[in-house]
Amino acid sequence: MLPMTQHVNRPRVVVIGAGFAGINAAKSLAGAPMDVAVVDRKNHHTFQPLLYQVALAVLSPAEIASPVRTVLRRAPNVEVVLGEVVGFDLEKRLVRLDGLDLPYDYLIVAAGATHAYFGHPEWEEFAPGLKTLEDATEIRRRILLAFETAEREVIANRPQPPLNFVVVGAGPTGVELAGAISDIAGRHLTKEFRKIDPRHSRIILLEGGPRVLPTYPEDLSASAERQLREMGVEVRTSAMVTNIEPGVVSVGKEKIPASVILWGAGVSASPLGRMLGVPTDRAGRVIVERDLTVPGHAEVFVVGDLASAKRRNGQPVPGVAPAAIQMGKFAARQIKRVLAGKPREEFEYLDKGSLATIGRSRAVADFGKFHISGLFAWLAWLFIHLLFLIGFRNRLFVMSEWAWAYLTYNHGARLITEPGEKEQVEKPRARVG
Amino acid sequence: MLPMTQHVNRPRVVVIGAGFAGINAAKSLAGAPMDVAVVDRKNHHTFQPLLYQVALAVLSPAEIASPVRTVLRRAPNVEVVLGEVVGFDLEKRLVRLDGLDLPYDYLIVAAGATHAYFGHPEWEEFAPGLKTLEDATEIRRRILLAFETAEREVIANRPQPPLNFVVVGAGPTGVELAGAISDIAGRHLTKEFRKIDPRHSRIILLEGGPRVLPTYPEDLSASAERQLREMGVEVRTSAMVTNIEPGVVSVGKEKIPASVILWGAGVSASPLGRMLGVPTDRAGRVIVERDLTVPGHAEVFVVGDLASAKRRNGQPVPGVAPAAIQMGKFAARQIKRVLAGKPREEFEYLDKGSLATIGRSRAVADFGKFHISGLFAWLAWLFIHLLFLIGFRNRLFVMSEWAWAYLTYNHGARLITEPGEKEQVEKPRARVG
Repeated sequence: MLPMTQHVNRPRVVVIGAGFAGINAAKSLAGAPMDVAVVDRKNHHTFQPLLYQVALAVLSPAEIASPVRTVLRRAPNVEVVLGEVVGFDLEKRLVRLDGLDLPYDYLIVAAGATHAYFGHPEWEEFAPGLKTLEDATEIRRRILLAFETAEREVIANRPQPPLNFVVVGAGPTGVELAGAISDIAGRHLTKEFRKIDPRHSRIILLEGGPRVLPTYPEDLSASAERQLREMGVEVRTSAMVTNIEPGVVSVGKEKIPASVILWGAGVSASPLGRMLGVPTDRAGRVIVERDLTVPGHAEVFVVGDLASAKRRNGQPVPGVAPAAIQMGKFAARQIKRVLAGKPREEFEYLDKGSLATIGRSRAVADFGKFHISGLFAWLAWLFIHLLFLIGFRNRLFVMSEWAWAYLTYNHGARLITEPGEKEQVEKPRARVG
Repeated sequence: MLPMTQHVNRPRVVVIGAGFAGINAAKSLAGAPMDVAVVDRKNHHTFQPLLYQVALAVLSPAEIASPVRTVLRRAPNVEVVLGEVVGFDLEKRLVRLDGLDLPYDYLIVAAGATHAYFGHPEWEEFAPGLKTLEDATEIRRRILLAFETAEREVIANRPQPPLNFVVVGAGPTGVELAGAISDIAGRHLTKEFRKIDPRHSRIILLEGGPRVLPTYPEDLSASAERQLREMGVEVRTSAMVTNIEPGVVSVGKEKIPASVILWGAGVSASPLGRMLGVPTDRAGRVIVERDLTVPGHAEVFVVGDLASAKRRNGQPVPGVAPAAIQMGKFAARQIKRVLAGKPREEFEYLDKGSLATIGRSRAVADFGKFHISGLFAWLAWLFIHLLFLIGFRNRLFVMSEWAWAYLTYNHGARLITEPGEKEQVEKPRARVG
């Protein structure tokens, strides 16, 4: 089976995943003398750092996602395949998709991470995490529906249900979500409800560890916690969640009633890591060599959140977007070097700093020696995220949405759209014989 | 049960439906000495004339929809209730929602229309119509997926499936959809596929009657057909669809293979019309008096697509947006007149003309004496639709999207997002123990 019929003698590269790592690998191979196929289950690259803004109705899905084909339009040697990987044959050098085998000379696996519920997959239904556009619109639906339901109960002369938003996990995603809910409840919705006051919402951020943003320096964790409290978020550290049921989060014996529960507590590697049949760490990430290849398979690279890589100082490479971008570009460069007869390099992560946004005009930034908090950190976050947002069009539109939301306090994308499943149930009722 | 506790002595008006008719009724009652409740199953008002642009990935859902609360934000006497009507008690003057009864002194029912499959509800699954945002994103998913699947089959060295897009019904929606598919296949997608040529798509528009746009003057029907043919659309009139199966549309004995089938053939009134227990016409529309009230219930108005109303000349009031807007405003004005002790008026539809868009720079317009075709009709369409699009923000953003799409041939919202149902099936596979 020879999928790339144009150039039978050119090396074939298959890239699995069109996230930050995969898309950057593919872009780096544009125009090189090889045939590249990028495989993803979705037709779009998602700018994950802004997903929470879709969940909080500031941005629309199309503003933080671009079709993979559009991103790679100007790379005639790069083909895009919509499909799900069901297996690998590393000996025959085949990627097995549902109904289609793709042969490769070089393989770059960049399948990313998914939510981890610490052995409680049944929690996922009650506490969705935030990894895809579908996750984001589902979270948006739940948050907006909580306010609508409360208003409706008061109209029906029944007691108002508590407007409790519980966010589990105070990593960057949890902090963003908690801060953004405070923004939307405290300002944007207040004028639009007649019976309830969204400002009386409780936003509870639960963190199992001793401080928020555990991967940040301690002073920035403290600053983030202070900024969150100023915004009215109840921050509870060393609060280990022991159970999640519909509407209730348990911390030890305490049961916290919750209208919406969101999960920001942990991620786990894509199951594709284990499908490779090579050593993985406890989180399912593939333990890679210094050149990001799999032991015994110098032609198979694993990059991005799926890779368990070490820095020269022995520290792990963090699971952040800049690391994924660097790893994707690195793998592409190694393939080009090998084909050019040059020796391989060793990967080293260049840490340019970390930024976590908290809310309107609030953020923390860790640039190594410089730690910044508040407005300036937020402006830096804004600038950097616009800079890296893929596609000129998206950048322009996101900038206008942000300006609009900032000036008017009006979140434009506040739509409750039904998931498909519910539609199936409801449609027959609307049918007229 | 007294939902409106602030002003127990003020008349209570319940408006069912936040489409063009309902939202205009509610806006007209803003600030009047009465308590108004607007009930809708969705939290947003959808600008239906632009739905096809969401289906064809030019616009995002948020650009043609506004939260009902936002539209009515400045009307403190208007409350919004998210809920589904399950029944009426016209004697007790109650609207029954799921778990909540709303009493009224005046009722305005503006529940609109839904797709009609002429006694074949099983066709809906294979040939979706275009009434809601969910319909639009589902159609978008099917069209984009057809190209992806064809590309994938060629990569797998299998025969390319036919890229046949069959649109059933050549009313304004069918014509818009056919023209827009031609636009997207002929220009926007051509540079992004490596194995297939989207320009080789066939777009087949089937109309049971003798001409396209049957409600338009004959010369404009002929012009629309000519413009469609110039765009490569195969127009087949007097072609009655006899069966729809997955991938096949039957016209008599002929079976037309189709990768995507879309339904623009007919609408039927909302089932709420029959729930009222008053006389309806064959399509389920409520036969109203000259003041748009139900016989025997001068306090119950039925407006918009759900109403079967007659003009003074005996012609039916057409099921178009301007008529719905005029009827909604009329009902509101009658309530205010009655409360002011003034006599009721008779409704008369003011026909300002009809516009149907066909594709980039192509449209037809019927302004009574003046019939326009082509670029000028299209510019008129553009201007009028921007003018009536609800909300300054949406207008601004839609204008920029249109300018962008027109200048770059780049459709920005080309996302395939999964319906919720499929997500439920897929998620367990992505879970890591």
